[in-house]
Amino acid sequence: MPLVEEAPIVITTFGWVPPFARGQVRDLRVRWALEETGSDYCVRTVGPVPPEYFREQPFGQVPAYREGDLQLFESGAIVQHIGEKDERLLPREPAARARAIQWTYAALNSVEPYVMGYAALGAFYPNEEWAKLRKPSAREELTRRLARVADWLGDREWLEGDRFTIGDLMMIAVLRITGDEGGPVAEHPTLDAYRARGIARPALTRALADQLALYTDKPKGEAA
Amino acid sequence: MPLVEEAPIVITTFGWVPPFARGQVRDLRVRWALEETGSDYCVRTVGPVPPEYFREQPFGQVPAYREGDLQLFESGAIVQHIGEKDERLLPREPAARARAIQWTYAALNSVEPYVMGYAALGAFYPNEEWAKLRKPSAREELTRRLARVADWLGDREWLEGDRFTIGDLMMIAVLRITGDEGGPVAEHPTLDAYRARGIARPALTRALADQLALYTDKPKGEAA
Repeated sequence: MPLVEEAPIVITTFGWVPPFARGQVRDLRVRWALEETGSDYCVRTVGPVPPEYFREQPFGQVPAYREGDLQLFESGAIVQHIGEKDERLLPREPAARARAIQWTYAALNSVEPYVMGYAALGAFYPNEEWAKLRKPSAREELTRRLARVADWLGDREWLEGDRFTIGDLMMIAVLRITGDEGGPVAEHPTLDAYRARGIARPALTRALADQLALYTDKPKGEAA
Repeated sequence: MPLVEEAPIVITTFGWVPPFARGQVRDLRVRWALEETGSDYCVRTVGPVPPEYFREQPFGQVPAYREGDLQLFESGAIVQHIGEKDERLLPREPAARARAIQWTYAALNSVEPYVMGYAALGAFYPNEEWAKLRKPSAREELTRRLARVADWLGDREWLEGDRFTIGDLMMIAVLRITGDEGGPVAEHPTLDAYRARGIARPALTRALADQLALYTDKPKGEAA
């Protein structure tokens, strides 16, 4: 995976992030989808975001995605786009397809806000009084939300049965925000095993190793 | 729009919600999309959620959507599904389509968490000390986020130019959480005008009137 723009797909991500964010930067979701589908891609890094980058990514965040003339942002939309091209990630049968997309939205809109609502307290507001006071209830709300996903899963291998889809990819990426082991997810054995099945996928292992490899041997802010 | 199940599409929503939530319940997004496309649908209400409802909507929330054998939850996924059937909401040209979907995800994952992060403080935690302490910074973070959307919009009519899409529908539904007028959105004239253009659409007016009509003449918790 070269760090120059010479593949049909170019992902843009940050060349440096603080240690707590490494392995969590959202380009991981896109890398994971591309690894699952065996796609040819390369990575472009940005340091401090230049003004013109906001035309690619209006929030100045990562990832951004380019494929020929198509420019996209939002990891959910990019992963869905990758899925549209490959039925290994997104079934072609209409109902199964809609259900897989539904879980992608569920991961991002019904689970991630609770995960981030708790994780952000320690990561972004470690010294704020309100964050300390909020922590117990944020944790409780997260636990209740995770219980719903665990209840749904029951003895299913993946969210919709025996086929891994973009919905699972996104749900597991969201669950990983609280860590790869232990934490609130581990309170629910069903969910803990589900997260572990996702983490064991070779495509995620490759995506994660590639993301982490970015942050070695480079001073803060240098763009590749 | 009959309140019995006799249309090809059935939306499930709550028969009662507290006054502050009226006009904001997320079935509005689905109603709006169905009104934009002139679809035939009806509404089923649930009161206190029965255990079997979690098989339709794993979080016990609304809306749930049924169309023949297809059952869906997540307003984003449902609205996208409605868009797939009608190019007035979701262009068929692949790049335009992907961009519209991207904005749907952006509304739900890059904007709504900030909108809710602020709105929830007053709505759900009015007496919590942490919520009072958090309010100023939550408002600042929301303002900065809204500025990004306003900057992107510039003099565009809709997010991707002159065509209203599911991305606009969802973004405007999210912006409306802070109210139909004034509030943090009004700090950004570009965004304020954009919200107003969305709110002026007859399909939203119909959807909103239908949602609000649910809550009259019925005691709390009664299912239609």
